[in-house]
Amino acid sequence: MAFEEMWRDLAPVGRSSSSGGYNRQPWASAEIELRAWFTEECARRGLAVETDGIGNQVAWWGAGDDGVLTGSHLDSVLEGGAYDGPLGVVSALAAVDALRERGFEPARPIGIGVFVEEEGSRFGRACLGSRLATGATTWDDAKELRDRDGVFLADAIADAELDPSAGLLPLDRIGTFVELHVEQGRDLVDRDVAVGLASEIWPHGRWRFDFSGQANHAGTTRMEDRRDPMLTYAMTALAANKQARLAGQRATFGRVAVEPNGTNAVPSLVTAWLDARASTDDALTEMVGSIERQADDRAGRDGTSLVVTPESVSGSVAFDPELAARLAGLGDWPVIPTQAGHDAGILSAAGIPTAMVFVRNPTGVSHSPDEHAETADCLAGVAALADVLEELAR
Amino acid sequence: MAFEEMWRDLAPVGRSSSSGGYNRQPWASAEIELRAWFTEECARRGLAVETDGIGNQVAWWGAGDDGVLTGSHLDSVLEGGAYDGPLGVVSALAAVDALRERGFEPARPIGIGVFVEEEGSRFGRACLGSRLATGATTWDDAKELRDRDGVFLADAIADAELDPSAGLLPLDRIGTFVELHVEQGRDLVDRDVAVGLASEIWPHGRWRFDFSGQANHAGTTRMEDRRDPMLTYAMTALAANKQARLAGQRATFGRVAVEPNGTNAVPSLVTAWLDARASTDDALTEMVGSIERQADDRAGRDGTSLVVTPESVSGSVAFDPELAARLAGLGDWPVIPTQAGHDAGILSAAGIPTAMVFVRNPTGVSHSPDEHAETADCLAGVAALADVLEELAR
Repeated sequence: MAFEEMWRDLAPVGRSSSSGGYNRQPWASAEIELRAWFTEECARRGLAVETDGIGNQVAWWGAGDDGVLTGSHLDSVLEGGAYDGPLGVVSALAAVDALRERGFEPARPIGIGVFVEEEGSRFGRACLGSRLATGATTWDDAKELRDRDGVFLADAIADAELDPSAGLLPLDRIGTFVELHVEQGRDLVDRDVAVGLASEIWPHGRWRFDFSGQANHAGTTRMEDRRDPMLTYAMTALAANKQARLAGQRATFGRVAVEPNGTNAVPSLVTAWLDARASTDDALTEMVGSIERQADDRAGRDGTSLVVTPESVSGSVAFDPELAARLAGLGDWPVIPTQAGHDAGILSAAGIPTAMVFVRNPTGVSHSPDEHAETADCLAGVAALADVLEELAR
Repeated sequence: MAFEEMWRDLAPVGRSSSSGGYNRQPWASAEIELRAWFTEECARRGLAVETDGIGNQVAWWGAGDDGVLTGSHLDSVLEGGAYDGPLGVVSALAAVDALRERGFEPARPIGIGVFVEEEGSRFGRACLGSRLATGATTWDDAKELRDRDGVFLADAIADAELDPSAGLLPLDRIGTFVELHVEQGRDLVDRDVAVGLASEIWPHGRWRFDFSGQANHAGTTRMEDRRDPMLTYAMTALAANKQARLAGQRATFGRVAVEPNGTNAVPSLVTAWLDARASTDDALTEMVGSIERQADDRAGRDGTSLVVTPESVSGSVAFDPELAARLAGLGDWPVIPTQAGHDAGILSAAGIPTAMVFVRNPTGVSHSPDEHAETADCLAGVAALADVLEELAR
């Protein structure tokens, strides 16, 4: 019952009672509570948690190098679901319990890890904790990031009583990384199986579009005298959707900020963030370029201007195919691609052999309070993860 | 020099040093400072200010009924200009100074008034102060309004140490109302004159559009499986612009709120406010109806749903034509329509003979830090207002 108990413990943390959505922003109260919960669960198992200078955490069972790290993240998107992230952490703890019940003694150390700010929901940079740990993002580059309230990353980290100069998660003990995650699509549903492994992560990224115009009175300014950036944005959002739909890729404008955002004022500035993903690096570059060109054309007609800034772009990640094939044989699990970014992708790109275990999601809905996985499937995921860890650490 | 001195005193209050825009929200610090400034300026002139239970203010020069009220408002839109509102209040004080210098003794009392929350920038209801005073909006209806932070109107008013149960501005002393205002279009520029009078206010209103869909993962959710309300909103914003442009009317979406507003989440809800204005009541109804129908059609295709809520709708206001003709004769001033709502429209609709004096705006830009009027034109406005008050109060 340990899995269900842990799951019940986490259920209320950071949950909005009105919407049912989770708001577990990094370096803020709910996430700090989750961090304390993780430390306590590790302590119950006799495992000491090491916390690095930005809040990445790891607890090792056993000593030595060439360890097998598993785990995921505890932060959520704004109004997110319960499973994205925490399922991988709770399953890692439960898998260690299962291995101990089996009497398994690891020949290599097994680590349970939690990466910080995986969603990028506060500072806009997805997988920020693993990016900093692997050097994919430098601290000099990251420290100037600000959240929606204008708080600098460095100040948020200091407020959480952490100190980046104390060092980041050492990678040299990690021989292999395995991340268990709820599936965020319906591939496993369509295949009618509870568990799968990842083949690759699609290339993906975030681009900030700043559409500038001229603030003006919404009543007295003739339509033909306006320079309204809302129109340029609106056309761009529709163009992005159409482009992705026709090409079988993904493009989304889900976040918008308007200045001054008054009902009776033509906006001076509309900032919108494009999330784009495609099956190949070339297809992604081509799609974003085409959206940008269409936005530029429309800006010319609207008398507005556009600046596009890439905020984080991740190339295609193919997980170690030999590792995936070896692990798939343990359970006859399908090996499937995903369009979602993960810390596993960052560690894989840093040269660490990496695998992902997916757990079926009956509706495919994610980043939403409707995100779900059946308990039976979660327990199947724990058993699969235990088998994988036993295979890798024996 | 009194006008210029008063103008200099007001210049820094509520001004953003980064953008140059004004943020003078009602019942908050900058507006409370402006209220104190107004009380002090009246006291300097030996005039006692009466403040009603919600913050409308009036200072009477002389006793008796059938008074001539002039004035405007001190609040601004978010990131607004310096002139919209304060020009009418400063000009009213300066016009009283001018009349006294002329040795004029009013036969009827002259009042200088300040209405609260004219812009509706905090609680979304334009001309809220004059609406409540005239009964166009009831307190029962208004008290449930909330600002962007969820603060109830009743609490904001109580926090400003005001008490609505103490009563509202009594209208029985007001025989005529004259509001001076910076022009918010380019009619006077095109006519090459500094001052004009108002003939009418176009019918106008605000409608809240709630577009609902389903939150989902921006990467893993196939485009064809989405119910994305951003798309329905984007098409609606473009349709509103096109509709207004073709008909010579006005339609603007300048304010948007997105839930959860995360880069990697398809939104669950997009709320956007339509500001629409037209030359006749029928044309306004027809335009808004057409925008709503196009939005509904698109919602059907996007798998989203739409609820439209009128927040404030004002019918056409024709200012007293005999009064306008009589006053226009004082200075050979043109009599022109406006598309902007004003407290003058609310008082006129309440049956008070009302006139408006406009001062030329060289670019026509308003609700923006670029809003401007030349000092010479402002002084011409003060002289015109003094002439009007003398005509009406003698």
